[in-house]
Amino acid sequence: MIIKTIGIIGNGDPNPELNDIAEEMGRYIALAGYSLVTGGLHGVMEAASKGAHQIKPRLETARVIGVLPGTDKAEGNKYLDYAIPSGIGWARNQIVILASDIVVAIGGGAGTLTEIGYAWAYKKPILAFDDVAGWSNEVAGKKIDNKRNDQIIRVSTPREAIQIINELFETKV
Amino acid sequence: MIIKTIGIIGNGDPNPELNDIAEEMGRYIALAGYSLVTGGLHGVMEAASKGAHQIKPRLETARVIGVLPGTDKAEGNKYLDYAIPSGIGWARNQIVILASDIVVAIGGGAGTLTEIGYAWAYKKPILAFDDVAGWSNEVAGKKIDNKRNDQIIRVSTPREAIQIINELFETKV
Amino acid sequence: MIIKTIGIIGNGDPNPELNDIAEEMGRYIALAGYSLVTGGLHGVMEAASKGAHQIKPRLETARVIGVLPGTDKAEGNKYLDYAIPSGIGWARNQIVILASDIVVAIGGGAGTLTEIGYAWAYKKPILAFDDVAGWSNEVAGKKIDNKRNDQIIRVSTPREAIQIINELFETKV
Amino acid sequence: MIIKTIGIIGNGDPNPELNDIAEEMGRYIALAGYSLVTGGLHGVMEAASKGAHQIKPRLETARVIGVLPGTDKAEGNKYLDYAIPSGIGWARNQIVILASDIVVAIGGGAGTLTEIGYAWAYKKPILAFDDVAGWSNEVAGKKIDNKRNDQIIRVSTPREAIQIINELFETKV
Repeated sequence: MIIKTIGIIGNGDPNPELNDIAEEMGRYIALAGYSLVTGGLHGVMEAASKGAHQIKPRLETARVIGVLPGTDKAEGNKYLDYAIPSGIGWARNQIVILASDIVVAIGGGAGTLTEIGYAWAYKKPILAFDDVAGWSNEVAGKKIDNKRNDQIIRVSTPREAIQIINELFETKV
Repeated sequence: MIIKTIGIIGNGDPNPELNDIAEEMGRYIALAGYSLVTGGLHGVMEAASKGAHQIKPRLETARVIGVLPGTDKAEGNKYLDYAIPSGIGWARNQIVILASDIVVAIGGGAGTLTEIGYAWAYKKPILAFDDVAGWSNEVAGKKIDNKRNDQIIRVSTPREAIQIINELFETKV
Repeated sequence: MIIKTIGIIGNGDPNPELNDIAEEMGRYIALAGYSLVTGGLHGVMEAASKGAHQIKPRLETARVIGVLPGTDKAEGNKYLDYAIPSGIGWARNQIVILASDIVVAIGGGAGTLTEIGYAWAYKKPILAFDDVAGWSNEVAGKKIDNKRNDQIIRVSTPREAIQIINELFETKV
Repeated sequence: MIIKTIGIIGNGDPNPELNDIAEEMGRYIALAGYSLVTGGLHGVMEAASKGAHQIKPRLETARVIGVLPGTDKAEGNKYLDYAIPSGIGWARNQIVILASDIVVAIGGGAGTLTEIGYAWAYKKPILAFDDVAGWSNEVAGKKIDNKRNDQIIRVSTPREAIQIINELFETKV
């Protein structure tokens, strides 16, 4: 059976506040037995990967997957179990989203904005952290366009987010 | 010498108000001798293509290029001179942007949002129409993140937009 | 540490002879603790996935990854642990190769030919089964062009192939 | 009406024999009023672009399009009228093929091999030069797999090739 996956998107640059959220979010995801999907690089992507990687022992369905923009596995952060170099640059943002059953946004700039757009267009449930700098706060609780009846789910803490994720898997996804 | 290109992005669904702007914008672009790049489908993409196509005689540098998501040229609207099927789905939004020297947003939903994100990330000058429904109005006059010093240029009319485009080609691009 | 991956490429149509080889190859790969990467669909891809999936208990580094052409995880065969929908059509063949440390070709038509081309271009060690119908037999023991000093390694049995793979990981990759 | 396009694929490295063929092929394509599509870089791609560019006056349907692997128009050779940076690396080979109504192979290594595979898979008529070093000679007159009833058309001179192209447009494409 295909392993459930949660995508985490957000700033690629270091940001202590966002990274703390991402790392805790990664731990919760691994504890729940979901695999983590990110863009495989740094900032929020690395912090979430680190969090998921810290859980010991990890359930065997709780792995860390990085879908990289370049052609070399070595480009990824050091917490990846699976490095998937795409070689398609930032167009890989489409794949980060498609490989995720549910998407969680933590801050984020232009790259994250493309991922939020893809997540909405590809009908993925989206959770967005408010009270942080970046696009996740801008879109939390809103709709991107009128093609979906739901909205981006506003969350404030990783604990709240993982509860919603668990519920989504039970009901909606 | 490589022909100058203007990308127009916006709603793929029919919207009379946006389409009027797009069609007029397409006419100005063709009159100025720039080639038009869009995603090649309908709504704003088709209206802009129609506008550019209407100019007769057209300068030979004023052609209409559609970068399509699918694999078949026939997917494009009927005003395309060049159909470039990408076969990469909405990841083709990256190519619409990269193929454009300057990007003009007219309304837009989730797909347009990915294009705005790419345009910012790839350092393209961006013009966004205000006073319309959709993402162009939301981002007009703003920054997407702090990686650029400029901001998205707010415009209200195609005439204003083409003047700014002409100036950008003289100075910045 | 990033988990080692073996890519298996070949016919997407059912072919009993090729599928037997692919299934046995999949078993050897899982037994050795490598994860399997394929295009996630049917024929050789499915048979290899089935073989890897059969091993019980499986080492936790022996998972089955399918990089799909479409946008939906449900497109994949039923033996996938991880489904990575790319949404980029057959351009995903580039990613199947980039995600693999070593590539094994078993028969194959036009799609497999693109993957052999990518594998050579991206400097991946390639093993190709001879004495089967399809492109793997055509290229076994040959060079694709003069940009590499090595050649495609000719193999005739899965047992022989896995020994070479083990040696490659010890020395070359 | 969408302008007819011919794709030329082959070595990216300089090769005087292949480049002479490519340049002459480019001239014939432009003289016939078709637009040329290549990967936009050097070797055969540049020579064909140069040939098409030399025709003066050129019909307005005879332009030179380069679909580039990188993100910057400046990566292309100096004979391009339209530079389409894809940002997707060698996965852009899929787009070179999809943007071409008919494909002509002149020599070629691993990259060209991926393009031949895509051209066959996407049902494009393919002409391949024999009596030259590289993959076009290997596949001339052959089938890539059994999914098509036709075969790759063997050609020896640009004059012969353009006649076949003209006939294909009259009958088959």
